[in-house]
Amino acid sequence: MGKFTIGKVPLLLAAGLGLAAAAASADTLQDVAKTRGLSAQDLLAAAKTYVPTGKRDDFVAFSSGGQSGQVIVYGIPSMRILKYIGVFTPEPWQGYGFDEESKKVLAGGKIDGKDITWGDTHHPAMSETNGKYDGQFLFINDKANPRIAVIDLRDFETKQIVVNPIFKSEHGGAFVTENTDYIIEAAQYAAPLENKKFYPLEEFNDKYRGGVTYWKFDRKEGRIKPNESFSIELPPYAQDLSDAGKGPSDGWSFTNSFCAERYVGGIEKGRPPYEAGCSAKDTDYLHVINWRKAAELVKQGKAKKINGHNVIMMETAIKEGILFLVPENKSPHGADVTPDGKNIIVSGKLDTHATVFSFDKIMAAIKAGKFESKDPYGIPVIAMADAMDRQVQLGLGPLHTQFDSKPCIAYTSLYVDSQVAKWNYCNGQVLDKISVQYNIGHLMTMEGDSTDPKGHYLVALNKLAIDRFNPVGPLHPQNHQLIDISGDKMQLLYDMPIPLGEPHYVVAISADKLKPGVRYKVGTDSRTDKPHPGAVRAGEEKTVRKGNKLEVFGTLIRSHITPETIEAEVGDEITINLTNLERAEDETHGFTVSTFNTHASVEPGKTISVKFKADKEGVYPYYCTEFCSALHLEMMGYLLVKPKGWKAVKTSLAKGSYSEADYKAELKKVADTQAVIDSVVGYITSVNFKDFPDVVAMVEDATDQLGKMKDAKAKHEAAAAKKDWEQANLWAEQVFQYQVKAADLGLRAKTYLEQHGAHKVAK
Amino acid sequence: MGKFTIGKVPLLLAAGLGLAAAAASADTLQDVAKTRGLSAQDLLAAAKTYVPTGKRDDFVAFSSGGQSGQVIVYGIPSMRILKYIGVFTPEPWQGYGFDEESKKVLAGGKIDGKDITWGDTHHPAMSETNGKYDGQFLFINDKANPRIAVIDLRDFETKQIVVNPIFKSEHGGAFVTENTDYIIEAAQYAAPLENKKFYPLEEFNDKYRGGVTYWKFDRKEGRIKPNESFSIELPPYAQDLSDAGKGPSDGWSFTNSFCAERYVGGIEKGRPPYEAGCSAKDTDYLHVINWRKAAELVKQGKAKKINGHNVIMMETAIKEGILFLVPENKSPHGADVTPDGKNIIVSGKLDTHATVFSFDKIMAAIKAGKFESKDPYGIPVIAMADAMDRQVQLGLGPLHTQFDSKPCIAYTSLYVDSQVAKWNYCNGQVLDKISVQYNIGHLMTMEGDSTDPKGHYLVALNKLAIDRFNPVGPLHPQNHQLIDISGDKMQLLYDMPIPLGEPHYVVAISADKLKPGVRYKVGTDSRTDKPHPGAVRAGEEKTVRKGNKLEVFGTLIRSHITPETIEAEVGDEITINLTNLERAEDETHGFTVSTFNTHASVEPGKTISVKFKADKEGVYPYYCTEFCSALHLEMMGYLLVKPKGWKAVKTSLAKGSYSEADYKAELKKVADTQAVIDSVVGYITSVNFKDFPDVVAMVEDATDQLGKMKDAKAKHEAAAAKKDWEQANLWAEQVFQYQVKAADLGLRAKTYLEQHGAHKVAK
Repeated sequence: MGKFTIGKVPLLLAAGLGLAAAAASADTLQDVAKTRGLSAQDLLAAAKTYVPTGKRDDFVAFSSGGQSGQVIVYGIPSMRILKYIGVFTPEPWQGYGFDEESKKVLAGGKIDGKDITWGDTHHPAMSETNGKYDGQFLFINDKANPRIAVIDLRDFETKQIVVNPIFKSEHGGAFVTENTDYIIEAAQYAAPLENKKFYPLEEFNDKYRGGVTYWKFDRKEGRIKPNESFSIELPPYAQDLSDAGKGPSDGWSFTNSFCAERYVGGIEKGRPPYEAGCSAKDTDYLHVINWRKAAELVKQGKAKKINGHNVIMMETAIKEGILFLVPENKSPHGADVTPDGKNIIVSGKLDTHATVFSFDKIMAAIKAGKFESKDPYGIPVIAMADAMDRQVQLGLGPLHTQFDSKPCIAYTSLYVDSQVAKWNYCNGQVLDKISVQYNIGHLMTMEGDSTDPKGHYLVALNKLAIDRFNPVGPLHPQNHQLIDISGDKMQLLYDMPIPLGEPHYVVAISADKLKPGVRYKVGTDSRTDKPHPGAVRAGEEKTVRKGNKLEVFGTLIRSHITPETIEAEVGDEITINLTNLERAEDETHGFTVSTFNTHASVEPGKTISVKFKADKEGVYPYYCTEFCSALHLEMMGYLLVKPKGWKAVKTSLAKGSYSEADYKAELKKVADTQAVIDSVVGYITSVNFKDFPDVVAMVEDATDQLGKMKDAKAKHEAAAAKKDWEQANLWAEQVFQYQVKAADLGLRAKTYLEQHGAHKVAK
Repeated sequence: MGKFTIGKVPLLLAAGLGLAAAAASADTLQDVAKTRGLSAQDLLAAAKTYVPTGKRDDFVAFSSGGQSGQVIVYGIPSMRILKYIGVFTPEPWQGYGFDEESKKVLAGGKIDGKDITWGDTHHPAMSETNGKYDGQFLFINDKANPRIAVIDLRDFETKQIVVNPIFKSEHGGAFVTENTDYIIEAAQYAAPLENKKFYPLEEFNDKYRGGVTYWKFDRKEGRIKPNESFSIELPPYAQDLSDAGKGPSDGWSFTNSFCAERYVGGIEKGRPPYEAGCSAKDTDYLHVINWRKAAELVKQGKAKKINGHNVIMMETAIKEGILFLVPENKSPHGADVTPDGKNIIVSGKLDTHATVFSFDKIMAAIKAGKFESKDPYGIPVIAMADAMDRQVQLGLGPLHTQFDSKPCIAYTSLYVDSQVAKWNYCNGQVLDKISVQYNIGHLMTMEGDSTDPKGHYLVALNKLAIDRFNPVGPLHPQNHQLIDISGDKMQLLYDMPIPLGEPHYVVAISADKLKPGVRYKVGTDSRTDKPHPGAVRAGEEKTVRKGNKLEVFGTLIRSHITPETIEAEVGDEITINLTNLERAEDETHGFTVSTFNTHASVEPGKTISVKFKADKEGVYPYYCTEFCSALHLEMMGYLLVKPKGWKAVKTSLAKGSYSEADYKAELKKVADTQAVIDSVVGYITSVNFKDFPDVVAMVEDATDQLGKMKDAKAKHEAAAAKKDWEQANLWAEQVFQYQVKAADLGLRAKTYLEQHGAHKVAK
């Protein structure tokens, strides 16, 4: 048993800690710390964040990718990025925007008939059941081109993009109601609601409008229903972030704003810029909306159609009593509902306070008809004092608030101070502050905007990294810092550079709530979740011509593409459907045809199609783009684009030179390899491999590979009987190739079993 | 002083280790290990890879992004990804493919007149001086659409893409000669060399060809010179990877191949697939080429023009004695020249051996005219036995070899065994093996393919991750595993998921060799490195109309865009040039106009332009897309697209309601804020801040911000004198905004100084 101490208290290590393994490097932890200049605090942080090989992270974070137009998935506490999901921007690794199925998803995001090939993603939202994250869907917005996307967490693929029918920009999306009935998206910069309609800035107050859209989500279909969605017209205050009520406040939503001054800039003409005019007054407005009643009003036909979309006009909203305003400290960012649904916390970015609004008090004022005034559009304004429990001075630039698993504990980012404040919103006490590098925007705790926050960790989304990382040119990564919030004092654990895009907000879910699949039902179109019309089974591959339309129905499996030749004529419109016949986890194939700007990622069971015009004569190789197997480079074929009317002269392929002796050598190699396989199989079956599902899957896959040998064996024997030594040799070689694939799996399984402590079992 | 032990030997910690800081958590390292299930070996690995906040990684790796078409930059040993560089695929965060400057770079990669909006990157190469990495340029290939890109490491931006004029696919690029005179790119799947030329597969042996291209690189200009580049025609053996000679072998290059069988598949017609036919024989060919003499031959006019490009035909190459073949074990991947340039190591993926070829022996055979045969095209073939020092049995699926800083030590990846073998190529001894998860492709040591490898670490580029990470759907990340090679036994340190793309090969350079800039000279077009014609200085912003062409010359600075209004008519062609006036590190602004599918990232000093047709009437907000400052959301403006012939009726903007009392309150706020700033300045100047260049830069920036107050102050005072309370208030508010920016910097500087141990200085 080893001894293991830090600080002044030497402690015995439990034998179970596995110190024996490290006996060879008995003194190295100290050496490493010395050599690498690590403090004891650093070692502690390293131990708290390191995830050893084969172990998993506790939480999975979904981060907006900012201007990359993607979603970033990373693990906590290791802060390792697991995936970039293609959302608004075409991404070829995933075939996103390069196969026909995903092009249809992207086409849903066209605006005024034109492709928009990027997005400025800001706020992801996890689907909720009773206000708790359920791990089923993720929603993300595009600020620049107001859109919302739906990602299915069964396969981490984008399934739908919808365009906001009345806004020209939005920032405050996506936020979900507590059972994900609606996804909330608020406008940002006011503009006329009618599409392609110009009004001059001189008519800003009268003709420019903001608003909030409530997108209806059909959970069973996993899609937004645009026809069942609606919006509420709002004044031209730049609406910003929202949150939906929870528990007692369910049915209501809260949206903050900036530039309630309705200022119009013009620095080029000597006018003070927007930054001055939009921050001149002390308060902006929190919009309080009864969305449940609004949905009823729409059903009652009280909405107006604008651009074909249901909009409840302000006049109606005021008359029906579903829209109220509350002053909030100026230029806030975030209206964060507490886990119990009783409070809404709003911080003024140019103020030093967080305001704890009370849902009960707001309701009481509404019920009592106690309003301090009406805004210029006639919306009742509740006095700030009547709507709040308290204000708490936190520091410079308070911005966004998230919650702890402990009651009443909140964390607020301080942009100007570059700090995180930990405070109690029930009594107003500030409990702790920690400095971050630098200029934190949003922050995020584990499931921290749900009704059931998980504590443990906080991530600071810092907007500047400056000197934190190795320099990579003028464009720096951002720095997401992981902070331990399990104790009384916050502790900085890890600096994480963001290598692509500028995340604005992140959500993190307990890893055990995510249960994505590893394969599709064979022949699935993953973007519709339905059977793909281009799918075929092994042996049913075909090429069909109808006029100048050539359609291939092919398959992919280690290590060949069927067909290996596609013969076309110049001008043909070619569609290639491909089904990945693999069942094995992670056995993805890719597909491209040289210079035709098309690419697909074909995971096990998936069917994709690529489409292009063979507009040039020539010879174009196609190949598998995922290193799938030892013979990956040989997984290829040729697209032959012939001139019109071309007639073959030579009709036989060149023969290779193969002898009977070669064939015998092949057979010996096959026999030798079988001996290796048998020994590996012997090992695997000698231990409790059935206790390891991953190994069982590998064994199944290996058995599949060996099963394919039978056909190839029959072929080489038949060819040998006819003394066709080329065919005999090559089919025998094909048997060997199946053996290599099986051996590969067997060796992988063996290593896995050895490393996971498999034990001998009685035969 | 604390005690700190691991294993059986308790050791005293040097006081300098800073244990005092961790006194509060005296027993927690053990607790953490227990709670998180970490072994002592895990703690050691954590300590060896953790990089504390503000510290830097020792090495920077540049990885191909596979089918993402990008380059991935990550730090070693932390394995944190620092940046994805846009190369072949448009990437909006960087504005790559969304601003006019980068569109021109991408346009260089058009094939047959059409955009190719992705790439399949495989092999990055670092520029070399005397065979050593010099950290100046990075080159990367596109396998699918044979192209090479040039990345300048002064700003980590892609500067040039060139299209291979004679190939239809390539895999073996990029490799550089020892002074980066040429970048080597080899064909992969054979095809007719003439562009858009069809020959049937029946004429494969006669009409299909491989080849190697030598791209001339002009280091001063940082660009490839296509007109000074040339190729050598090769037989239709699928050429694969290359390496350039070094030291004694400089002037020569080596390219391996697979499918020297010249097999044509056709599984859909019952023929054995490519995988069988291309691996039937025991050997393929290593191509040995005298590229220096080849370059001379081109100058002598001995090349033939194919598609306008200089190609030395095989016949000439044979006659001139610059092309030779050596059999190599079948289906190899990599021809790796040892650091001393004396050996070339080639491993057969379907064999178990690595072959150590001898450059001297190859030269001796050539000199003696000792050839075992000629290949079907008349190329002299040197006997394997005459060309090699030895063969070493390493394991199943040996693939790629890299070198240690210690003499004679090599590391070879074993794909089928999922292992790395450490061995001595001078005496053939196998020294160590380590298992990896799973199916390693390439591997990489620090500067390990240069003449001066740095040792320390090895990265295993595993092609499958399967169960290693939290599941993220059917498409898995890959797993790059970091291995410590500093001792006799290799030790696994870290599992790194690759979140986007499938890297094929990586190069890593000592971090101190990279010296990228943090800003551009004001007004630079970063893609040409020249002054941008659209650049203007502060105060010189203007909008110019010529017919229906509207051109804006604007600027960006915290927190406004000049101009804040752009007035256009439907049908106008709009060009917006923007210069980022910031000098501060990391003070990047972004720019987009709602729904016009354009985006730019504008780092300090850079000038960009975006161009689009105002083809629809309406009001379109534009804004800064990088969270640059507290008033970032207010950094916006409106593009107004008016109907043709529209005449204004209302000509004045709405007035806000501001009083003299408001103005006085503003002045008080400004005075209070100044007090805060003064106290921060007091602190900064009380310590040795001049010893910290980052702080000096912040102070300069803050001084800049405060300097801008003067003009705004004059304006608010002038307006107040005229009792124009709106203007007086707003310009006073603008003074406050400059103060906020200065305070922000001051607080950041203060935190930095406190954390970096600044000390008091005498005034």
